[in-house]
Amino acid sequence: MGLSVGVIGGGQLARMMIPAAVNLGIDIRVLAENAGSSAALAATMVGDYRDRDTVLRFAEGVDVITFDHEHVPQEILHELVARGVRVHPGPDALVYAQDKLLMRKRLSELGLPVPEWARVETTEDLQVFLDANGGRAVVKTARGGYDGKGVRVVSTADEVDDWLANGDSLLAEEVVDFRRELAQLVARRPSGEIVAWPVVESIQRDGVCAEVIAPAPSSAGKLSDVASDIAHTIAEKLGVTGVLAVELFETTDDRLLVNELAMRPHNTGHWSIEGSTTSQFEQHLRAVLDLPLGATGTRDEWSVMVNILGGPGLGRPDQHVELSDRYAGAFADQPTVKVHNYGKEPRLGRKVGHVTAVGDDLDEVVFQARAAAEYFQD
Amino acid sequence: MGLSVGVIGGGQLARMMIPAAVNLGIDIRVLAENAGSSAALAATMVGDYRDRDTVLRFAEGVDVITFDHEHVPQEILHELVARGVRVHPGPDALVYAQDKLLMRKRLSELGLPVPEWARVETTEDLQVFLDANGGRAVVKTARGGYDGKGVRVVSTADEVDDWLANGDSLLAEEVVDFRRELAQLVARRPSGEIVAWPVVESIQRDGVCAEVIAPAPSSAGKLSDVASDIAHTIAEKLGVTGVLAVELFETTDDRLLVNELAMRPHNTGHWSIEGSTTSQFEQHLRAVLDLPLGATGTRDEWSVMVNILGGPGLGRPDQHVELSDRYAGAFADQPTVKVHNYGKEPRLGRKVGHVTAVGDDLDEVVFQARAAAEYFQD
Repeated sequence: MGLSVGVIGGGQLARMMIPAAVNLGIDIRVLAENAGSSAALAATMVGDYRDRDTVLRFAEGVDVITFDHEHVPQEILHELVARGVRVHPGPDALVYAQDKLLMRKRLSELGLPVPEWARVETTEDLQVFLDANGGRAVVKTARGGYDGKGVRVVSTADEVDDWLANGDSLLAEEVVDFRRELAQLVARRPSGEIVAWPVVESIQRDGVCAEVIAPAPSSAGKLSDVASDIAHTIAEKLGVTGVLAVELFETTDDRLLVNELAMRPHNTGHWSIEGSTTSQFEQHLRAVLDLPLGATGTRDEWSVMVNILGGPGLGRPDQHVELSDRYAGAFADQPTVKVHNYGKEPRLGRKVGHVTAVGDDLDEVVFQARAAAEYFQD
Repeated sequence: MGLSVGVIGGGQLARMMIPAAVNLGIDIRVLAENAGSSAALAATMVGDYRDRDTVLRFAEGVDVITFDHEHVPQEILHELVARGVRVHPGPDALVYAQDKLLMRKRLSELGLPVPEWARVETTEDLQVFLDANGGRAVVKTARGGYDGKGVRVVSTADEVDDWLANGDSLLAEEVVDFRRELAQLVARRPSGEIVAWPVVESIQRDGVCAEVIAPAPSSAGKLSDVASDIAHTIAEKLGVTGVLAVELFETTDDRLLVNELAMRPHNTGHWSIEGSTTSQFEQHLRAVLDLPLGATGTRDEWSVMVNILGGPGLGRPDQHVELSDRYAGAFADQPTVKVHNYGKEPRLGRKVGHVTAVGDDLDEVVFQARAAAEYFQD
């Protein structure tokens, strides 16, 4: 028998592991939430990842368990490990991607650059933090947030009373005065090897990644070294295996601060499918299988990825529009752009695909990627 | 519902369409010969492609039928068309990839450059051909040959008496004095658009493609134009849809002669997965769906593909060796090379995978590809 990898979660990240698994002859099996998941082609089981028995059964006979998301409960992960299943990233690393308070605490202990932060358990706690930080704060639920959900920018202490009433643990952070957002992806295998892709710029809209430019413009030299050092340190000290994405703020006073962590392939790494010698999806599979990692250089000077969100056109409730209905126009107009369609219902605001353009002239590459994406957004 | 494509045949060509289909959100369904086929991940039916009812049932509900091989009988293909199924390439084109005698006759009628040839029905026919062509000939069965099977080089007329006794139709061809073998791939969509990749050099060993260099060295200019013109003419005049591979001899007196045709993705186009903006597999899907075709330029100056055959190491009957058993060595040694594993039992001489290297220095690219392939061949 060859190699097998079990992926918990059937979203687009699991889906995009499929081509890499096919190329490498890896038997990829997905535990999907429902029958029509984005990764349905490789789904060998449909079930609830919060159900112990479901996950234990899914893990039988696969070489390694890995993830499309970070929501599998710690108890289940620890039980897998106790039963001898190889789980990558393991629970002791993954907990820092599951809980933002633990993450902030650990990164602070490691001396890594993070925004000012505090644990908030009462309205008074938040008032103290607001008073100390110019009267504004970003408040996040420690668990469960994504794509701008579970995040509020507040200026009075009562604005998160509903969360406090729920008993949620909250993280308050300073509102960082940043020039732009960056992301540094690395991959680490259990035996220790770490490789880094170039640091990229991530352009967000409404808390959701809209575009990624790889490498980040004007990032050669110190910026790139610092970003890579931060991610190396996190990967090593937290014992991350597989792909680690470190989202960073580049502040107006030229510091890099760690914003969020993800321990899986990440939206800011989709460019690597076409733009790097080794895509984040291939690398994640190699890393969790503890195989030597692939080269992470860029194949062109610039890669630009633009997300396709379900929107006023695609997401219109009064008509059923498929991404593929727009292929004729997009393909004819932009024959060099690569379109990725996640096979998802294009509900409003949902990430349903992305496009990537590559080339040597950044303006042209940005133009091509946006022009192609436009066909799917109107 | 989105787009769907049904592929008849579950070999590595169907397998390598899967990543392209996943990227484009195309529902790919494979009619496989057996349960453990190379394209098993997308197999929705296992059955005999020579069985009319099996094929008709498989074709229900897919937008287009296409092929991993050219062996589906003409009667079945014509019945599909009569029932309104979109079949690409269609039977009237595909027949020229099924029957080498028909192919030679048609190309001769079109005035395309082909080796001297004759239909052979008796030993006397072959003697006449030998007498007229210096006493040597390549004799091929008109149907069913591949990878050197169904091909003999003969110097006496009785060497194919067994084939004649079987009632096989035979094609005799001159033994071409060639400098090297080339392949020109193009793709054509039903509405007429044709695009060509650069002409490549194909290095054969024992009648099987061993290596491909893309583009063919010293092919810029006239050679490239002539090869592309030949393939354009064949695609148009024969009404080919999808990918067309034209295998060519470059003769010692500087002519190009058409050797074989294939109307599907082809071994000489595997380099395009990494080496071209649009891979032959993505292009084939776009073409058969009549979508605008992708750009066919090279992404690096050179791409080199080396086939992995089941051999003395991998194919040893006394031990079960998987390609993936060699990943640790190959990946560590050649971190930029891409490995493709077809998930097939590595029987002696069987194509079980390939590797591709890309870069600007041909010697280095050849070295890297061979060095990586070596891990799977010893």
